[in-house]
Amino acid sequence: MIPRYTPAEFADLWSPRARYDAWLAVELAACEAMEDAGLVPVGTAARLRAQELVLDPSRIDAIERTTKHDVIAFLTHVEELAGPDARWLHFGMTSSDVLDSSFAVLLARAADQLLVRVDRLVDALGRRAIEHRRTTLMGRSHGIHAEPLRFGMVLAGHLAEMKRARRRLRGARAEIAVGKLAGAVGSYAHLSPAIEAKALATLGLAPETVATQVVARDRHAAYFAALALVAAGVERLATNVRHWQRTEVAEAEEAFTVGQKGSSAMPHKRNPVLSENLCGLARVVRAAVVPALEDVALWHERDISHSSVERMLAPDATSTLAFMLERAAGLVEGLVVYPEAMQRNADLTGGRTFSEGVLLELVRTGLARQEAYVLVQRAAMRSFEGHGAFRDLLASDPDVTARLSTESLARAFDLEHLLRWSDEVIDRALEEP
Amino acid sequence: MIPRYTPAEFADLWSPRARYDAWLAVELAACEAMEDAGLVPVGTAARLRAQELVLDPSRIDAIERTTKHDVIAFLTHVEELAGPDARWLHFGMTSSDVLDSSFAVLLARAADQLLVRVDRLVDALGRRAIEHRRTTLMGRSHGIHAEPLRFGMVLAGHLAEMKRARRRLRGARAEIAVGKLAGAVGSYAHLSPAIEAKALATLGLAPETVATQVVARDRHAAYFAALALVAAGVERLATNVRHWQRTEVAEAEEAFTVGQKGSSAMPHKRNPVLSENLCGLARVVRAAVVPALEDVALWHERDISHSSVERMLAPDATSTLAFMLERAAGLVEGLVVYPEAMQRNADLTGGRTFSEGVLLELVRTGLARQEAYVLVQRAAMRSFEGHGAFRDLLASDPDVTARLSTESLARAFDLEHLLRWSDEVIDRALEEP
Amino acid sequence: MIPRYTPAEFADLWSPRARYDAWLAVELAACEAMEDAGLVPVGTAARLRAQELVLDPSRIDAIERTTKHDVIAFLTHVEELAGPDARWLHFGMTSSDVLDSSFAVLLARAADQLLVRVDRLVDALGRRAIEHRRTTLMGRSHGIHAEPLRFGMVLAGHLAEMKRARRRLRGARAEIAVGKLAGAVGSYAHLSPAIEAKALATLGLAPETVATQVVARDRHAAYFAALALVAAGVERLATNVRHWQRTEVAEAEEAFTVGQKGSSAMPHKRNPVLSENLCGLARVVRAAVVPALEDVALWHERDISHSSVERMLAPDATSTLAFMLERAAGLVEGLVVYPEAMQRNADLTGGRTFSEGVLLELVRTGLARQEAYVLVQRAAMRSFEGHGAFRDLLASDPDVTARLSTESLARAFDLEHLLRWSDEVIDRALEEP
Amino acid sequence: MIPRYTPAEFADLWSPRARYDAWLAVELAACEAMEDAGLVPVGTAARLRAQELVLDPSRIDAIERTTKHDVIAFLTHVEELAGPDARWLHFGMTSSDVLDSSFAVLLARAADQLLVRVDRLVDALGRRAIEHRRTTLMGRSHGIHAEPLRFGMVLAGHLAEMKRARRRLRGARAEIAVGKLAGAVGSYAHLSPAIEAKALATLGLAPETVATQVVARDRHAAYFAALALVAAGVERLATNVRHWQRTEVAEAEEAFTVGQKGSSAMPHKRNPVLSENLCGLARVVRAAVVPALEDVALWHERDISHSSVERMLAPDATSTLAFMLERAAGLVEGLVVYPEAMQRNADLTGGRTFSEGVLLELVRTGLARQEAYVLVQRAAMRSFEGHGAFRDLLASDPDVTARLSTESLARAFDLEHLLRWSDEVIDRALEEP
Repeated sequence: MIPRYTPAEFADLWSPRARYDAWLAVELAACEAMEDAGLVPVGTAARLRAQELVLDPSRIDAIERTTKHDVIAFLTHVEELAGPDARWLHFGMTSSDVLDSSFAVLLARAADQLLVRVDRLVDALGRRAIEHRRTTLMGRSHGIHAEPLRFGMVLAGHLAEMKRARRRLRGARAEIAVGKLAGAVGSYAHLSPAIEAKALATLGLAPETVATQVVARDRHAAYFAALALVAAGVERLATNVRHWQRTEVAEAEEAFTVGQKGSSAMPHKRNPVLSENLCGLARVVRAAVVPALEDVALWHERDISHSSVERMLAPDATSTLAFMLERAAGLVEGLVVYPEAMQRNADLTGGRTFSEGVLLELVRTGLARQEAYVLVQRAAMRSFEGHGAFRDLLASDPDVTARLSTESLARAFDLEHLLRWSDEVIDRALEEP
Repeated sequence: MIPRYTPAEFADLWSPRARYDAWLAVELAACEAMEDAGLVPVGTAARLRAQELVLDPSRIDAIERTTKHDVIAFLTHVEELAGPDARWLHFGMTSSDVLDSSFAVLLARAADQLLVRVDRLVDALGRRAIEHRRTTLMGRSHGIHAEPLRFGMVLAGHLAEMKRARRRLRGARAEIAVGKLAGAVGSYAHLSPAIEAKALATLGLAPETVATQVVARDRHAAYFAALALVAAGVERLATNVRHWQRTEVAEAEEAFTVGQKGSSAMPHKRNPVLSENLCGLARVVRAAVVPALEDVALWHERDISHSSVERMLAPDATSTLAFMLERAAGLVEGLVVYPEAMQRNADLTGGRTFSEGVLLELVRTGLARQEAYVLVQRAAMRSFEGHGAFRDLLASDPDVTARLSTESLARAFDLEHLLRWSDEVIDRALEEP
Repeated sequence: MIPRYTPAEFADLWSPRARYDAWLAVELAACEAMEDAGLVPVGTAARLRAQELVLDPSRIDAIERTTKHDVIAFLTHVEELAGPDARWLHFGMTSSDVLDSSFAVLLARAADQLLVRVDRLVDALGRRAIEHRRTTLMGRSHGIHAEPLRFGMVLAGHLAEMKRARRRLRGARAEIAVGKLAGAVGSYAHLSPAIEAKALATLGLAPETVATQVVARDRHAAYFAALALVAAGVERLATNVRHWQRTEVAEAEEAFTVGQKGSSAMPHKRNPVLSENLCGLARVVRAAVVPALEDVALWHERDISHSSVERMLAPDATSTLAFMLERAAGLVEGLVVYPEAMQRNADLTGGRTFSEGVLLELVRTGLARQEAYVLVQRAAMRSFEGHGAFRDLLASDPDVTARLSTESLARAFDLEHLLRWSDEVIDRALEEP
Repeated sequence: MIPRYTPAEFADLWSPRARYDAWLAVELAACEAMEDAGLVPVGTAARLRAQELVLDPSRIDAIERTTKHDVIAFLTHVEELAGPDARWLHFGMTSSDVLDSSFAVLLARAADQLLVRVDRLVDALGRRAIEHRRTTLMGRSHGIHAEPLRFGMVLAGHLAEMKRARRRLRGARAEIAVGKLAGAVGSYAHLSPAIEAKALATLGLAPETVATQVVARDRHAAYFAALALVAAGVERLATNVRHWQRTEVAEAEEAFTVGQKGSSAMPHKRNPVLSENLCGLARVVRAAVVPALEDVALWHERDISHSSVERMLAPDATSTLAFMLERAAGLVEGLVVYPEAMQRNADLTGGRTFSEGVLLELVRTGLARQEAYVLVQRAAMRSFEGHGAFRDLLASDPDVTARLSTESLARAFDLEHLLRWSDEVIDRALEEP
């Protein structure tokens, strides 16, 4: 989590203050639930809440240097501030009851913040897809011109992918919104499932089915995997922008703002730096998945090896992804599209990209597919080598004209016909949840 | 996919024959759908099916050495075998229509095979959890004795985790059961969404919302992530078996069969080799996630970089996981449990593991938590250093006896009371879907 | 290790036969060394060698199904074949003495085979770099035209990178050529360092400094990291070929052989499929690094979790990399280069790529750098927007002509001057070891 | 890089101030070299140095918000502060000349700081290995008692591993201490190799053999791999401490300081939290390797996707590893060792761990190895099942006594004999560089 790539909401979310506030929220919710159960004197939590405690992270750090235990340091500090009532906090609980439940709250909140940003990107992709319903560009496979497409369809493909990513992220949010108040080894030795259920409900969490000392870490691994899948979708989008903006392609480019400079050496440069940045950050988010998976196999009822991983990677992965989503949304919103360049490029191969239609017309006449293929490939390769326009070469090839009339040849080159389904496909992406 | 770790069903599933059969199935399903749409003469597919073609993988390989294109080699071979009707196959289609749809069929089938094995493991865990509802063992955090537990609860924790993994795997199966018949760049230039929908339905697949030349690879990445999450759950289980079987712990061990030898050098050895093997294989399955994520950002309408990754990792990850699940199920079914050793270990610390109850009894008397902590820690550390049994040290400590009666001290050491919720927790895991 | 991506030498190297032969070689080398030390009757190894045993892997597998221990199965089989002398084999040894020493032999052999292939690629890059010493192409940063280059320099960059990869691979080979004959926990309880040193020397290995039951796995992790670094270099090369072959760029392309077909649907296609394949395979090789690192922290004197990882990933990573290197060498050797297309592309921006020289000429006149930058960027952006050729716009800008004479402006556009150092740089790469 | 895991030197090293100071150092070194070459007026650098500029990171950030280019923002700020002489800075250079050369300086400095910490850990391991030359503990494979060892030998194994890691880190430092001053696309269009060599020498760097716009990223990937290998060695050490400290094993434990608290719930706990933390952090450091490998294949002469990865992971990986090394050194220095517990555990199996010697004595009498194995395994398994002490069972087994005298049986149980080589092995580790 470096300032450069951290949205303000995430700097707050992962601040020491927010962490300790979340701890206190868990303790107070637990205290209330214990009051109902008769474990703790009624009114304790209310009196503590009324104090509106302002925790001092640096004081907690100072105490931790002695106790070498962060939750004990926190409780000691709360006792300092709040007086005798505080002794009822943490009753029958273990540190992980606080840590894991509050971590779930923060991760769920991070997911919510991420979903807001996915929504913005989804909206932008949808709008631009509609805008470019009729914009034609050349489809490429292997970087080689293939067959024509609508640019709106390409954007709709990214839209559909981002919606899938959103569904997975929602699923991961549901899986991670799980806490525990089951005590030292998950046995509820000094508490009860009912107390846990009540306290967690206050926090918007469900209880872990069978906790150990901690909430099971497969939930967290699933969460990080969902983040990486969002990032991978952004990476695909950014990769395509980089291709579109290449000097030789020049079909679309990132908005270039007043005062912006592309290179310290070369004043002529306008580089797709936002998209390249997104590709790099996708690697960073992706890199959190394996450590999260390694964290699952904790020893017995838990070891604490996962903790340092999560302290570093949870803020990093969520805030970096949030930054990516904001940047990607801005990129899509501001993307400068050059339909005339798309057209110019589409014409580059002189119609060779209509070869499949010719092939199929030949098959329709009864020619075996592989024989038809040889005829069409021959004309295409001669055209590639500069011996004339593809369509002309076909029209003057007796093997072809023996089979295809001028009309059937024309049919193979009819762009509107080839793209007759694009609206339906775009609508499909727009309509998905 | 090495023979050692490949169940027979997976050797079949990923054989060249199965692959080419799946390709043919896609071609025939597509042909039928095109007949309905009037693109292909009615009866073509039926006549081709009637021929009951037996494809020869080695012949396809031989043709591919010339064409350097596997699907064209396949089609050429089918034409050789089936004669003129074959020219209608692949009409308006691109290779990826065949490859991706058939790959989806195989991945869905692999998921089904995996789910059967997860079911077996889930059943085994459930049965053993019920069997050990009342078996007491020491709970450990950080490898250090914490508080007592029921062994059935520990197994229920693994059960709940494996059920979560199963739900994710089912979700991934649904996401991957998606094909395409949208042609070269996904535009349906020579086909239609209706033809695609009909053909894919025959194969048990849904259509890709917006295809490029290929089905979007975020689906595959999500699939591999789901596999890794199953493997991580198995790894946690296997890690615990390794701990239980340690010489000094000896609470449970892998079944040791007649004739088995633990070491070539040391005839006395009985090693948890199955569990260690599972831990290693979890690393292998986990290692497929990042390449699958790297595959997502294909260039433009596709490049073929994902193909080699999937050729290697899809068989490897699915069959290795299947092997793991079989082995894990057998391990749980045959696990030899030593309740008396669990009891002996539980007694090792002379009751120090009841310290939390004492702490809470002291807090109940009005003592501040951190002061109570110091009292109890003092007795525990003296006991740890060999100065007597923990309970005796407490009973003879005037600071303690000034506050706790014999009865309230006894309450802190009441095992049945501490474990009163274990049945409810176990049932929770058993009842989950 | 799938046949598609496995060179014949690697299929042999990792065959069961080769593995068992390597085991026998270790046993016999150890036996000889023990004869010298008086532990085993003189002549035993010679008599066993004279038998020229032909091991039967399927028989060993059958025995292993009972013993569940592969080395014991192997020894039992050798005893079956060789008779009483065989009882002296494995004297005082543990399985890992055999397994790890023979694995080191195989990994060193794999490294040798890989180095032969790196040499071929290095040679090809060197030859093509010399061939294209004077071929000019446009340098690109961010995919955007930057400043001109020699194509030979670009290839020299790949050459230098591949030589670095080779040096690392040689280093990894030296690190992995380490065995052990230190017995069950590395204590030489029944052997001696002298016996070990002599036996390993026969096999071309050095002894592990301090063995546990196994050779330390950080050596293997370092080996896999070295493989991934070779693969990453190949990936960079392949990525560039993919860019050069793009339809809009078309500066170089993979050799397209007679009979080759680019697409099942589109007969006009010529795709950079070899390069894309190399990019995919680099992901596979890279994916072996993390599991190898996870293998390092074996428990106590060893656990066997590393074994399954290595059984799968060692053959996979080495043979896949060997395949990659062969393919990459063939790619470079056969790369079809289009200098005229390089020139055509270089001219696309109408000289804007000489902007830096203009900037520096302006600075030389005493203008502040950022002011000069604004002047030059202004002309470049106007040219980009279609308002004229960059050089003309400069020549007609009074702010520029007030400072630059026609001669000094010309100097900024002098290609030969800008590239005066390219030969020296190319030679630097050619001369490195 | 979170405060919790960041040593002060690394917080400084990766601060904005240190970064900009390193940039300025590169610019001034380049300026001096250009003065010698006659490109820049003599005395410029000296006058600029004499100004002792204090750069203001926040001002640079503010400018960057307009230029969207960090190096241009930096240069603009320097011009603001230093006046007209500053226009000679960056002459003929590109941003990456500054960025990559200064990054190399910082990474080399980080490596130096890491090496100091590796030295401390190496020293600690060496001292403790000498201290425990004669301390006997049970060697374990698979977590199961195998054969006895000296604890000093175990520590010597970690020592040798850490020395290997140190050698690799030194190698990586040499590989990364490479800069460039070759201009926009590495062509030295406006500079020369001689200027570069001189400037970089001032900074302690060698020139890149063939630069693109950047220093080749395989160097950085090799660097991160070297870090991960150090971390993996620490992880193995920490894993072993965790095992030694388990309640049932209790052979060694982390120092427990006054005031430390093991658990918020359970006052009796003393947990190996430092070691667990090290295991988690090793995952974090390891996770930087794959992104670094992904960074290698930059497009053409460079794209900027690597930059964000390095901004996040270079500080993270180096400082986290530095923290790990400090913690690991402290852990080893303070490790509390319980030789009597080691002895007590060694006796747990009643001598079964001497089984190999008995096996070999039987083989020496002419018995086939596998027959001898059966005899010894039989006694071991009966002893395991509680039917008596292993040695007694052997002494009363007529099949054994028919072959072994009391003396030869005793030889198999002679601990000092079995461990006669341990001093030599320990010395081997101590003597290595």
